[in-house]
Amino acid sequence: MHEPGSQLIGYSSSAEGKQTFQAFNPLTQEWLPQSFREATIEEIDRAVTLAAAAFSIYKKAAAAQRAAFLHAIADEIIAAGDGLINTASAESGLPIARLQGERDRTTGQLRLFAELITEGSWVNARIDNGPPDVRQLQLPLGVIGVFGASNFPLAFSVAGGDTAAALAAGCPVVCKAHPAHPHTSHIVAGAIRAAAEKTGMPDGVFSLLHGATIATGQQLAVHPLLSAIAFTGSFRGGKALYDTATRRPSPIPVFAEMGSVNPVFFLPGILKEKGETLAGQFLQSLTMGTGQFCTNPGLFVTQAGSDVFLETLQKNIVSLPAGCMLTQGILEAYNKGLAQLQQAGARVLGKAQAHSQQAAPALLQVNVQQALADPALCNEVFGPSSMHIRAESTEELYRLAAALEGQLTATIHGTEEDLRQHAELVDILREKAGRIVINGFPTGVAVNHAMVHGGPWPATTPAAGTSVGTAAIYRFCRPVCYQDFPAYLLPPELQNNNPMKIMRLLNGKFSKDALP
Amino acid sequence: MHEPGSQLIGYSSSAEGKQTFQAFNPLTQEWLPQSFREATIEEIDRAVTLAAAAFSIYKKAAAAQRAAFLHAIADEIIAAGDGLINTASAESGLPIARLQGERDRTTGQLRLFAELITEGSWVNARIDNGPPDVRQLQLPLGVIGVFGASNFPLAFSVAGGDTAAALAAGCPVVCKAHPAHPHTSHIVAGAIRAAAEKTGMPDGVFSLLHGATIATGQQLAVHPLLSAIAFTGSFRGGKALYDTATRRPSPIPVFAEMGSVNPVFFLPGILKEKGETLAGQFLQSLTMGTGQFCTNPGLFVTQAGSDVFLETLQKNIVSLPAGCMLTQGILEAYNKGLAQLQQAGARVLGKAQAHSQQAAPALLQVNVQQALADPALCNEVFGPSSMHIRAESTEELYRLAAALEGQLTATIHGTEEDLRQHAELVDILREKAGRIVINGFPTGVAVNHAMVHGGPWPATTPAAGTSVGTAAIYRFCRPVCYQDFPAYLLPPELQNNNPMKIMRLLNGKFSKDALP
Repeated sequence: MHEPGSQLIGYSSSAEGKQTFQAFNPLTQEWLPQSFREATIEEIDRAVTLAAAAFSIYKKAAAAQRAAFLHAIADEIIAAGDGLINTASAESGLPIARLQGERDRTTGQLRLFAELITEGSWVNARIDNGPPDVRQLQLPLGVIGVFGASNFPLAFSVAGGDTAAALAAGCPVVCKAHPAHPHTSHIVAGAIRAAAEKTGMPDGVFSLLHGATIATGQQLAVHPLLSAIAFTGSFRGGKALYDTATRRPSPIPVFAEMGSVNPVFFLPGILKEKGETLAGQFLQSLTMGTGQFCTNPGLFVTQAGSDVFLETLQKNIVSLPAGCMLTQGILEAYNKGLAQLQQAGARVLGKAQAHSQQAAPALLQVNVQQALADPALCNEVFGPSSMHIRAESTEELYRLAAALEGQLTATIHGTEEDLRQHAELVDILREKAGRIVINGFPTGVAVNHAMVHGGPWPATTPAAGTSVGTAAIYRFCRPVCYQDFPAYLLPPELQNNNPMKIMRLLNGKFSKDALP
Repeated sequence: MHEPGSQLIGYSSSAEGKQTFQAFNPLTQEWLPQSFREATIEEIDRAVTLAAAAFSIYKKAAAAQRAAFLHAIADEIIAAGDGLINTASAESGLPIARLQGERDRTTGQLRLFAELITEGSWVNARIDNGPPDVRQLQLPLGVIGVFGASNFPLAFSVAGGDTAAALAAGCPVVCKAHPAHPHTSHIVAGAIRAAAEKTGMPDGVFSLLHGATIATGQQLAVHPLLSAIAFTGSFRGGKALYDTATRRPSPIPVFAEMGSVNPVFFLPGILKEKGETLAGQFLQSLTMGTGQFCTNPGLFVTQAGSDVFLETLQKNIVSLPAGCMLTQGILEAYNKGLAQLQQAGARVLGKAQAHSQQAAPALLQVNVQQALADPALCNEVFGPSSMHIRAESTEELYRLAAALEGQLTATIHGTEEDLRQHAELVDILREKAGRIVINGFPTGVAVNHAMVHGGPWPATTPAAGTSVGTAAIYRFCRPVCYQDFPAYLLPPELQNNNPMKIMRLLNGKFSKDALP
């Protein structure tokens, strides 16, 4: 194991930084004992340079080897046992059961990507045998800088979806640990390191850097040998990285998932049918994990005549339990965000009780005119609050929907009659979000092949990507084509006899056949 | 037909601009009579606003309707007859036969995209039928701003590959005509307009704006209703658009193809075998179209012992015909570029004769040390010149290859023994280029499914894209997923019974089957 508190640069520990920071336990309100060194510029440079050297080896590793590495990471994470879960709980305040579930999600993601690359068709092999003979496949982009999120210390952090997708694609990862859970990050990095050693991966295929200030991330983002950045977090953080990366002498893409308010539209028919039930389900979705999800329903819309639904919400919100938030900063931002919305004219529909170190679930309310006049009323307040907007007519509902910014998700609740009568709403929302949910709730993002966790600006950048599901791998690739290559120089995916038995596009037709 | 010299905004002409410009015939050295108005800010706004309104209709057009539109554009371009070809020749100085070939390429591209969307599998439908039931497909991005290139007045201009790909995807296009061929642009826009009318497309699905100054393009790039930009041209032009688009309040992607030097590596064995033949073929590739191709071989590398090859080049270059360039500006930049390379220490290996209005084919030379010390020696000089770099050893050859910037193409000439001995060169070059050619020449970009016309910065932005071939369509799409949708709200591509009989990824497996 490498020394706690230090950087992991490839297979080596490095402890050159003089500045240190500690994590805070939001449940006990105590600073945790272990101190962590902020990475120095030299350490950041060494990590990326080593990763670039590792790339020249790792990109040539057979899919089976990369898959073995991913499975080994999952195994090592499980082997880290209760220590990992307890540390993550101490650093995040998240309950043990939730973190155990998140661990399953994390190992499940790693194994899903391992299966994807073992099957092999994901490279999108395309062959036009000409003349000229032109053959295309997706190749890894290079060294990826991964910025872990605070709200999923396992599944969207050090060995989370971004790291799994990048390693699967053939890209080394330099991870910037989220300063809210440095020890958790340290343990997971140790698991990746052990897995890399056991499966014979090159030194530098993975590094972990610590830093509590913005400087570490910025220095990583400008490194000339970095090829792309993956980020999950706040709009401010994602935008800062985007600005830095696009202004480099040689710009690189930033895949930033920056959250959204995830509007939920409750149509009149269904509220008549089961307004009370939906109110209960909505509050459950809203307060799950103290509302600390990128897909938390921070905005909901009803039309006139939704009294039972709203009354049930009002009645139930006050008695909901308040929750602990991930960090002091997030708690402060939550309370400040609620205050700002009220100052901007939102009225409080209902609010739970909470002591000073907890976030109280809250429902606010504005009308469509207010929301259209001041778009800030529809901004995300990260936590268990939601803004209710009451539309007087379907036309007003459409106008509001059309005025929304880009979102990760948009949800509609409606009976068949509701949905047929509001077909235009689906049409409007498909321009606003990466995922549209009917009669469900946006929280809970399935990890599969069809998932999209992304959406138009400011939800993510660029809109054309997903950070969850197997399609996430394409963020870390680019197409390369080989023209008139002799057989002995072609990668297996493009060879005539199709040794990997993958699906390919042969002269425009899908086929697993060999070429004559 | 709309009035020549004016903007085409949807189906209407608009002639509000007071500033005008004319095209220049580089062969006759005369200004052409027709004057063109520079689009005003109001006209640009009207074109994009109308396109955004058209999007809400056009995106719902069935694939068969969009395909009919693309075929109709091809038909109308052919119907424009010799008038189009003669106009293009007068505005570009390009020979008639070349432009006839380019017209075939243009109509061929349009029809290839029509076939692609008629077949339908391109949407990458993915279904995981859960629970939750999640279904993904590629949807059009919105209004695309297309910036035509000067060097292909048909195939990379108004109805070129970018426009064909965007319209195929379901995106309206607002095209900024290249000021070097405004009348050609006008005629092609008329063809698109006629095709749109005949196939019942919404007003605004296509608009053409003129402008000789940078202002028109910049104003188009900042329009809030624009969703992406496609550009083919110089690094300076592409970079300016990239900077503008990434600094908007709501950034949008810029797909800029900004050219490259397209290095060609001649390995020792093959030069011994057929140095003379290769010298002839190289000069033909270099001077084709007076070297005015993005894929022109502007840099070539040999190792010691390539005397016959170099002597043949030197002997033959002097007697090659000089050529007319597309514009006065391009000719001036060519001569200035050559002078700068000489000032930076390049020696002239050989140069043809030319009168003052022609570009003389030229070969320059530096050694590896010079090239590594001053990367500007490897910069593109658009036109029929190439820089020779002589490597003293294989190690020096690799060092040079590794130091190159991103390229559209990289080429290797070698015998089987050469190639096996230089396997690392392929490996280095695959990080540098979007297309690697063995024993061929980079000029000539096949339009098919496997082609990649793109590459790492500064060749294109982003690296992960192509502006030629059917994969170019993905630049103008984003994935959207539908969760738990009732059957009657799903697009045909995602319906259980697979009415379009397309290839889909069902629970991770490729299949054309219906879902039970």
